[in-house]
Amino acid sequence: MNPVDIIVKKRDGGELSPDEIRYFVNGFVKGTIPDYQVSAWAMALYFRGMNDAETTELTLAMAASGDQLDLHDSLPPGTIIVDKHSSGGVGDKTTLAVGALVAACGLPVGKMSGRGLSFTGGTIDKLESIPGWNPELSEAQFRRQLREVGLVVAGQTANLAPADKTLYALRDVTGTVPSLPLIASSIMSKKLAAGADAIVLDVKCGRGAFMETLDQAQALSRLMVAIGTRAGRRVIALITQMEQPLGHAVGHSLEVQEALATLRGAGPTDFQTLVMTVASEMLVLGGKATDTEAAQQQLAAVVRSGAGLAKFRAFVAAQGGDVSLVDDPTRFPTAPYTLPVPAPQAGSVQRIDAREIGLACVDLGGGRHKKGDPIDYRVGIMVAAKVGDQVKPGELLGTVYAADEARGAAAVRRIQAAYTFIHTAVAPLPIVYDRVAV
Amino acid sequence: MNPVDIIVKKRDGGELSPDEIRYFVNGFVKGTIPDYQVSAWAMALYFRGMNDAETTELTLAMAASGDQLDLHDSLPPGTIIVDKHSSGGVGDKTTLAVGALVAACGLPVGKMSGRGLSFTGGTIDKLESIPGWNPELSEAQFRRQLREVGLVVAGQTANLAPADKTLYALRDVTGTVPSLPLIASSIMSKKLAAGADAIVLDVKCGRGAFMETLDQAQALSRLMVAIGTRAGRRVIALITQMEQPLGHAVGHSLEVQEALATLRGAGPTDFQTLVMTVASEMLVLGGKATDTEAAQQQLAAVVRSGAGLAKFRAFVAAQGGDVSLVDDPTRFPTAPYTLPVPAPQAGSVQRIDAREIGLACVDLGGGRHKKGDPIDYRVGIMVAAKVGDQVKPGELLGTVYAADEARGAAAVRRIQAAYTFIHTAVAPLPIVYDRVAV
Repeated sequence: MNPVDIIVKKRDGGELSPDEIRYFVNGFVKGTIPDYQVSAWAMALYFRGMNDAETTELTLAMAASGDQLDLHDSLPPGTIIVDKHSSGGVGDKTTLAVGALVAACGLPVGKMSGRGLSFTGGTIDKLESIPGWNPELSEAQFRRQLREVGLVVAGQTANLAPADKTLYALRDVTGTVPSLPLIASSIMSKKLAAGADAIVLDVKCGRGAFMETLDQAQALSRLMVAIGTRAGRRVIALITQMEQPLGHAVGHSLEVQEALATLRGAGPTDFQTLVMTVASEMLVLGGKATDTEAAQQQLAAVVRSGAGLAKFRAFVAAQGGDVSLVDDPTRFPTAPYTLPVPAPQAGSVQRIDAREIGLACVDLGGGRHKKGDPIDYRVGIMVAAKVGDQVKPGELLGTVYAADEARGAAAVRRIQAAYTFIHTAVAPLPIVYDRVAV
Repeated sequence: MNPVDIIVKKRDGGELSPDEIRYFVNGFVKGTIPDYQVSAWAMALYFRGMNDAETTELTLAMAASGDQLDLHDSLPPGTIIVDKHSSGGVGDKTTLAVGALVAACGLPVGKMSGRGLSFTGGTIDKLESIPGWNPELSEAQFRRQLREVGLVVAGQTANLAPADKTLYALRDVTGTVPSLPLIASSIMSKKLAAGADAIVLDVKCGRGAFMETLDQAQALSRLMVAIGTRAGRRVIALITQMEQPLGHAVGHSLEVQEALATLRGAGPTDFQTLVMTVASEMLVLGGKATDTEAAQQQLAAVVRSGAGLAKFRAFVAAQGGDVSLVDDPTRFPTAPYTLPVPAPQAGSVQRIDAREIGLACVDLGGGRHKKGDPIDYRVGIMVAAKVGDQVKPGELLGTVYAADEARGAAAVRRIQAAYTFIHTAVAPLPIVYDRVAV
């Protein structure tokens, strides 16, 4: 077997065999296939695609390139390990609320999460707005907390899918990121290596997501469900709306506070609906409920009883975080400047460019332009008027929380420009567009 | 400017600006753009192509990456420097005869040539079958011989188009060789850097050539003529037949002997026709004849007078070769085994797979499987029966010249298998399919 023949086969539209795919992935992990051959192969793949069988082999080969966790021996016998994944959006604090509620219903949740880049935030970054909270756990700590608390969120502790890491870094600098098989295998290789029996995928779709059209989101969802199923896991994908920011809060500590409000039953309606939808799918996959209706009743019960919030508090405590902020969110450090965003005109909100809102938050210091940039957890935006709302001139579209006045004023202008108004009634946006399963 | 943006622009079908192309070529020559970005770019280009303007910029940027010769000051004032290029075929000894005849008509010919690879032979290798003949000339030696003898064939002495060398090596291992803009710019960058005012391109077409179809050959010809014209040179392309071997001789010293016979006016008809066609185009471009008819008369005259052969003899002498072989070709060392290739059946020759004949010669030791392999100059094949000829069973299809009996016998079988017969009359193949000019 030789790398050039494999590149040429894909270039000419051929189907790569499992052996060829494993040979190629192993070769680039070991360094015996040089990066210039890998990048040519990735570009050929960008143009020619891969079928489900090829993409599954690629995913499995990448998952097999590093540690493959099995957490069952840290959990009661018969536990079905359910993971969730979001493709990323603006104001997406879903994991924070879903994890606590699902865990409170008796299904352990142990997640490895990432950091934010560009216009989307990362779960780890958001949780770090709680002073003392620590994402760096050893595998032993991870397992103990999963068993004792039932909820863990950590940075990547194990060496999961190093092939994906290597390939992604190369794709990033060779124009080969937007390839469905490469995106799907990148996501799924890490999920498979993390050892989930079942996975709920939250595929965000719209202006504030990486998949901007429903077609793209459906294709990606279908592919990831196919990969998971071929790999022997139960996978469902929800395609959810990300045209406008999710809930009201965009910014790290603002989002944690909104998640806490949701755990108290006082969250924004759209966010609460999404949380209930994702969490109920997890409970059904995890065998804790026979259907999503029954699951939603359990979830409503742990909100009412405060068990969900208590689970979140225990989780924060276990990872060293200051629980006094969980008990009293007014104790979160606040940004020194608060600026209203007045509506520049009357009308119904027709559209809010979620990406612009995300980037306005980055500009305030609440995000990264590049890897490793520091984050100001205090800054952000509370979006008040959402699509379908009617406003009068000067009425509040939202509020900017800024570290200095000039950046705050710039954010106000950017947010105003992200709104489109119309003089007829506009229906609110749906939360879930589609559900993809086998 | 940044390499990823340029890759993405081409990936998405955009037209690269002259600045972007120069930036990219300079970057990979200097090593500031890593090879993994160059290979991804080349693969994007394989799929998306380049228009004439882009391909010309690429060619000029590669030509400008090294030495750019100007030989005018070594030649009489007003001399138009005419180069020729063949895309390579089986039994293609055209340069040997054309160079001597054109030079004998008073148009100096100074060529840098390459070595053979795979099923095609190289001019330098063929000339090296003359003991003592040396292709390694300094630029000063090259210029002096061009001025004093009017005919030089050398290996690449100057550092011509190093960007092409780098890019070609990378394309070879990344599945990006068969891209028309990359092929055309590779050929033309060296020709432009070598300083020709005018160029006759002999684009071989058929089973024994790299371009197997007339469409491909026409597209490549059109593109190279466009590049040359945009670069201010006069360029014409002849698309010539390479379905069956050219002439009779395939193999190094056999081909030199056939070129010598042709200079004596006793060459095979098809080869002689091609030589006259290419040489007359060169004389017209070089201002030595008003049209190709007048040029052909001059060429016939230097064959008759022996001036063409004398020019070849002087050229061999100037580069240290043993001229006694030119005077008496029976002195060429011969292979120890001579095996007849009998026709396995009666019929008209419908087809001879030229590539198979070329590969049979390689297997005899008369070619290279890989760069640097040694060559046995004595071995080869004299093809007797050509397309359109009628044979009886056992009649001679050709003769194999071998270093040992086993390899000779294998070549006999391979050659027999390369022939297709039919029981109706077959017309001989044309020599020139098309002529492409502005």
